[in-house]
Amino acid sequence: MINETMKHLGEKRSCIRELFEYGKMQKEIVGEDNVYDFSIGNPSTEVPKEIVDTMKNLLDNESLKVHAYTSAHGCLHARKQVAKNLSERSKDTIRAENIFFTCGAAPAIISCIKALAVENAEVLLIAPYFAEYPVYAGYNGVKTVVVEADRETFQINFEDLKKKISNNTQAIIVNSPNNPSGVVYSAETLKKLASILKEGSEKIGHPIYIIADEPYRELVYDGVDVPYLPFIYPDTLICYSYSKSLSMPGERIGYVCIPDCATDGQQLYYAIAGAARTLGHVCAPSLMQWAIADNAQLWPDITVYNNNRNKLYKELSEMGYRCIKPMGAFYMMIEAPGGNSLAFCEVAKQENLLLVPCDDFGCPGYMRISTCVSEDMVERSLKAFKKAIAKYQ
Amino acid sequence: MINETMKHLGEKRSCIRELFEYGKMQKEIVGEDNVYDFSIGNPSTEVPKEIVDTMKNLLDNESLKVHAYTSAHGCLHARKQVAKNLSERSKDTIRAENIFFTCGAAPAIISCIKALAVENAEVLLIAPYFAEYPVYAGYNGVKTVVVEADRETFQINFEDLKKKISNNTQAIIVNSPNNPSGVVYSAETLKKLASILKEGSEKIGHPIYIIADEPYRELVYDGVDVPYLPFIYPDTLICYSYSKSLSMPGERIGYVCIPDCATDGQQLYYAIAGAARTLGHVCAPSLMQWAIADNAQLWPDITVYNNNRNKLYKELSEMGYRCIKPMGAFYMMIEAPGGNSLAFCEVAKQENLLLVPCDDFGCPGYMRISTCVSEDMVERSLKAFKKAIAKYQ
Repeated sequence: MINETMKHLGEKRSCIRELFEYGKMQKEIVGEDNVYDFSIGNPSTEVPKEIVDTMKNLLDNESLKVHAYTSAHGCLHARKQVAKNLSERSKDTIRAENIFFTCGAAPAIISCIKALAVENAEVLLIAPYFAEYPVYAGYNGVKTVVVEADRETFQINFEDLKKKISNNTQAIIVNSPNNPSGVVYSAETLKKLASILKEGSEKIGHPIYIIADEPYRELVYDGVDVPYLPFIYPDTLICYSYSKSLSMPGERIGYVCIPDCATDGQQLYYAIAGAARTLGHVCAPSLMQWAIADNAQLWPDITVYNNNRNKLYKELSEMGYRCIKPMGAFYMMIEAPGGNSLAFCEVAKQENLLLVPCDDFGCPGYMRISTCVSEDMVERSLKAFKKAIAKYQ
Repeated sequence: MINETMKHLGEKRSCIRELFEYGKMQKEIVGEDNVYDFSIGNPSTEVPKEIVDTMKNLLDNESLKVHAYTSAHGCLHARKQVAKNLSERSKDTIRAENIFFTCGAAPAIISCIKALAVENAEVLLIAPYFAEYPVYAGYNGVKTVVVEADRETFQINFEDLKKKISNNTQAIIVNSPNNPSGVVYSAETLKKLASILKEGSEKIGHPIYIIADEPYRELVYDGVDVPYLPFIYPDTLICYSYSKSLSMPGERIGYVCIPDCATDGQQLYYAIAGAARTLGHVCAPSLMQWAIADNAQLWPDITVYNNNRNKLYKELSEMGYRCIKPMGAFYMMIEAPGGNSLAFCEVAKQENLLLVPCDDFGCPGYMRISTCVSEDMVERSLKAFKKAIAKYQ
């Protein structure tokens, strides 16, 4: 008498997690240095020193305060500081009341989805998309509908998008810089998206919200711009996490920002809070809230990611791989030699080279590599990449 | 087009949270020292120094490791250490494989509930029960059925329990030491419970699991014993949180322990992992996992809670309140003078005395006070308690 769906979800694990666990096991067998684990997005850059200093100071001097329950939506000080910084970055006016702190981006996105989960609700995913979105939506009362990938530019396939909007469309998840492609949607793409969604909303008689999953928004290369979405499309709910930008994915700290311009924003804020409650959210980890509060202005150090991106793009291209040049995040997508990503990832695995097939990202035929690894591992991995592709040449 | 149920849940808040927020506002108006906030279970004892030292050491020396993603079920080191300590405390054999780390007890309990949420599933709650249980169960696919309180001893009303077991009973939540009553279920009570559940399970043809919510198990007074439940009833899933025992409720760190003796334990472990995934669980806060790993042997300092318990029990009894003497946790239940707890709590609020009515705990006519407050506030609050009861004398 066990829920079979839950059992299946726990047994199966995500493809990334599966590979991550395999990598840890394999390292114990063949040695740490002989496994080239490009599976998970675990930042290889240290947490900024300012954060560490703030945490140590809080631990020494504010012990009772920093470990106590905060309000469910987060402590006022942290919400104020984050709102202030977000206002400066965006030139929008964000107040503490717009911020709801969460245990990272995953429950933030799920809370938005549950808040919008009316009968027959549908959420659009733009391929390629983060492989856990179908779990977030599908097991929280919403049907997912996939907008096929634009395999030329990896921007948005607007022809398919138009076809996929229905009377039940409640939201679309927009993830730019994108995981897995590393592509940043241009202002032009986002304006066109906004115009289609606006038209669609008017036609179906209710707003289609953008759920903007933005953990990578500060991780961009060559000075590329990540437009602030609510200025382009007001019905945007921003889900953010400090996992990537401040190198603390294990700490589970993020937020939802519901800007004033969003239709029924206050009602949505309540619904998101209610949804979080049903997920067992009590508050976001408190020490992290306080630590973020004093460091909201920090910017990530992307040196290593950029070096890895440049090196891998150049070297793999020279070997004959077709790579999509990433402009943000710390992933790169590669076309699978031979066309079958599952098969190629198995071949790579024989060389202890761990690549994630993009089949679960809605983009079969491609593989994802994380570039947030050590420069040393990148160097060592090259011979494995060479051996793997050699089998197809 | 917003989910009305979620909106309602977010608007309403729990009675405890509502009062906690009111208290914070009121303090700004009448001054910190003039509000006697007995609402929330925020420990008033500092985090043990050992934990602080471990965290500072980890921050200085293990920065990349401690903030990284761990496995979804928790890092192996922490699971091993917790399992080792749990084995020592219980004399059971608990291995790392039995432990699934969570963001506190709330998602631990919800994950167990979702794992058992088959069609028409029912979960029994023993009144008085923690007021959020109906939210955890009711919005995660399970119907809650209340076993009425035994208002004499606040142990378990077995006559009513027998009546409430149905073919759909999947689990019963057992919370001892109990929030709100502070009562610890005796070995005799638990044995009788086990025998009824065993009989019930046989009759209905499938196990009725105990979901043991045990954040207070180390917080006991006068040397009272908290029996290890799986030895009395094998089909027990233990949900634990370090919130109370190590004074870190804001940090959201806890676990589910699925002992080997539980029927279909491995299947349940998977189902709990799958359920956690649907809640947006990625891993429990990583720094806290590592900090707990090196300090699993710690025991809470209950001096202040015990002083408050003794003082409040004595003083309030002398004033004419009927108090239930707590043997564990850091709450005390008081019969509402006049019989109407909602009305009395309003009267108390006029004196800036914040008491939680037990109506949402399935026990109208009673109020809960948290004794995890400062001794100084207890002293200052006495005149307010006196004024409040005077209106009924």
